[in-house]
Amino acid sequence: MATEKIYKQPSTDMLVEGVRSGDRAMIGRAITLIESRSRKHQEKAHELLDRLLPFSGHAHRVGISGVPGVGKSTFIESLGLMLVEKGQRVAVLAVDPSSGRTGGSILGDKTRMEQLSSHDQAFIRPSPSSGVLGGVARATRETIVILEAAGYDTVLVETVGTGQSETMVSDMVDFFLVLMLPGAGDELQGIKKGILELADMIAVNKADVFEKKLKQAMREYKSALHIMTDASPNWHPPVMPVSGLTGQGLDDLWSKIELHRRLMTESGEWDERRTNQRLTWLKSQIADRLLDDFYHSETIAAALSETQNKVVAGHTTVSRAVADLMKLYHQ
Amino acid sequence: MATEKIYKQPSTDMLVEGVRSGDRAMIGRAITLIESRSRKHQEKAHELLDRLLPFSGHAHRVGISGVPGVGKSTFIESLGLMLVEKGQRVAVLAVDPSSGRTGGSILGDKTRMEQLSSHDQAFIRPSPSSGVLGGVARATRETIVILEAAGYDTVLVETVGTGQSETMVSDMVDFFLVLMLPGAGDELQGIKKGILELADMIAVNKADVFEKKLKQAMREYKSALHIMTDASPNWHPPVMPVSGLTGQGLDDLWSKIELHRRLMTESGEWDERRTNQRLTWLKSQIADRLLDDFYHSETIAAALSETQNKVVAGHTTVSRAVADLMKLYHQ
Repeated sequence: MATEKIYKQPSTDMLVEGVRSGDRAMIGRAITLIESRSRKHQEKAHELLDRLLPFSGHAHRVGISGVPGVGKSTFIESLGLMLVEKGQRVAVLAVDPSSGRTGGSILGDKTRMEQLSSHDQAFIRPSPSSGVLGGVARATRETIVILEAAGYDTVLVETVGTGQSETMVSDMVDFFLVLMLPGAGDELQGIKKGILELADMIAVNKADVFEKKLKQAMREYKSALHIMTDASPNWHPPVMPVSGLTGQGLDDLWSKIELHRRLMTESGEWDERRTNQRLTWLKSQIADRLLDDFYHSETIAAALSETQNKVVAGHTTVSRAVADLMKLYHQ
Repeated sequence: MATEKIYKQPSTDMLVEGVRSGDRAMIGRAITLIESRSRKHQEKAHELLDRLLPFSGHAHRVGISGVPGVGKSTFIESLGLMLVEKGQRVAVLAVDPSSGRTGGSILGDKTRMEQLSSHDQAFIRPSPSSGVLGGVARATRETIVILEAAGYDTVLVETVGTGQSETMVSDMVDFFLVLMLPGAGDELQGIKKGILELADMIAVNKADVFEKKLKQAMREYKSALHIMTDASPNWHPPVMPVSGLTGQGLDDLWSKIELHRRLMTESGEWDERRTNQRLTWLKSQIADRLLDDFYHSETIAAALSETQNKVVAGHTTVSRAVADLMKLYHQ
């Protein structure tokens, strides 16, 4: 879908109307427009988003993370189908900064989530292809605006459990779910740095397959979460067994996620989290832009590697190096 | 010491010579100079550091973190005295970004580390008073250069176990030690986010007092470290019992830290870590400077809060807001 070209660009009016009426082709085109990095498209994208913004904000945004092999696709397909059967409209996005090309390594495979993707109450979109983390983040957040304006009730944001993309996704969702495998000893190792602290819940997947190991794994995850400080006084991240394959535990899992929404809404933390996310996003986009301008300026690009060599070799202090680079930049 | 004024400024030559000969008064003045944020002092500070830089790099830099009440001062005093007795020259620095004034909340109390501070082979310096994290980081790193040029063998960098200062300190030391208390259940909670991932070792302090709880605590910390990915293939962070008060375990602890140095040196990770630290530091100082210039520009300072309000209220997208701010900034 992300490979479609904007041959004849529909007008902004047409896009707004198409998105609002839930026209899947128009939703796809709107997303392609905001994903575009061409200057020409950017102004139009801003206009589109400004007009859709008032209709956004109503979806339940859930991030789902887990290392390759944990069974994310199967889990998301089962969860998505369950929600669709409950009468919801469900969108699935992927965030995979490593994907070098359109429709990269996750959600790129057309055979994945076959049932869900053919369901007319579901919308699935692969990761935008921008190689830059900040670019992927921007496109994903803006895609959420479009999908919410199109009336989707739940937006599931899938990400691979490696690297900075977790922090990024947890910063744009209401609930961050980490999928883990039951396994002991060495298999438990390899939890990506910091991911436990982002989790609003750990779901131990493939609970049907590894029944024996399940109890021990749940105990270990509970113990790990136990010594962390909870992000909210009203929520301690639970550890739940599920099976994406058999559907076991999915109902309980979703009830918990809904309970979280209710508790956070009642305590005011729901709005607070979203407000903070917006401010953090503004701040990080400003920083991205400033750094981008700096590192892409011709003078800096020409001088940087020599400066780095000097710093590494101990021929100059960092303070001096920064002062010199700044002089060069502002010339 | 940090309150001393540069009434009559010694020349750079005098400072270089004084530092190199280990003159404590001159070392103090050199540090005060690099801590100064006045433009006039900055050029001189750069010159001083450039001349001392070739003599730096030889100390063993060890970060020590732990929440208030864990017994950091007593531990550092005991460790420092032990090292001094082994014939080493030991410097202790503090990093406490919360300290609003010179000689802030940690290491500010003159009665602390009384024995160590009166030892002529030891040098103790409270946290620089800059309210900005980046400023404290810069001053501390540059102070390490001065102390190394002055011939100190070991530099202990103390920091409070809360907030971003841990990441900052772990990024300027060769070894990052986290002090914890033995305690079960609720007492184990409250580990600051991400701190376990920085630890090259967890030392469970007050092992003499809480003997009964010690075993359980060590088991829990080991288990928590077990499920994290090690930063180095050659080092799994150990959990060790110590007592700052009785000195119990300090010898073993230091042997381990020396073992770490040997293993890292042999594998090449020692130099690699320092190279990466320098490049990371360059990058972060560039970012600090760009952000600082941006947020302190008059036009941005005047426009920012209205922009933030608009973003929070959903009246504009972040992309549009950033584009508008950038236009304003580059006018």
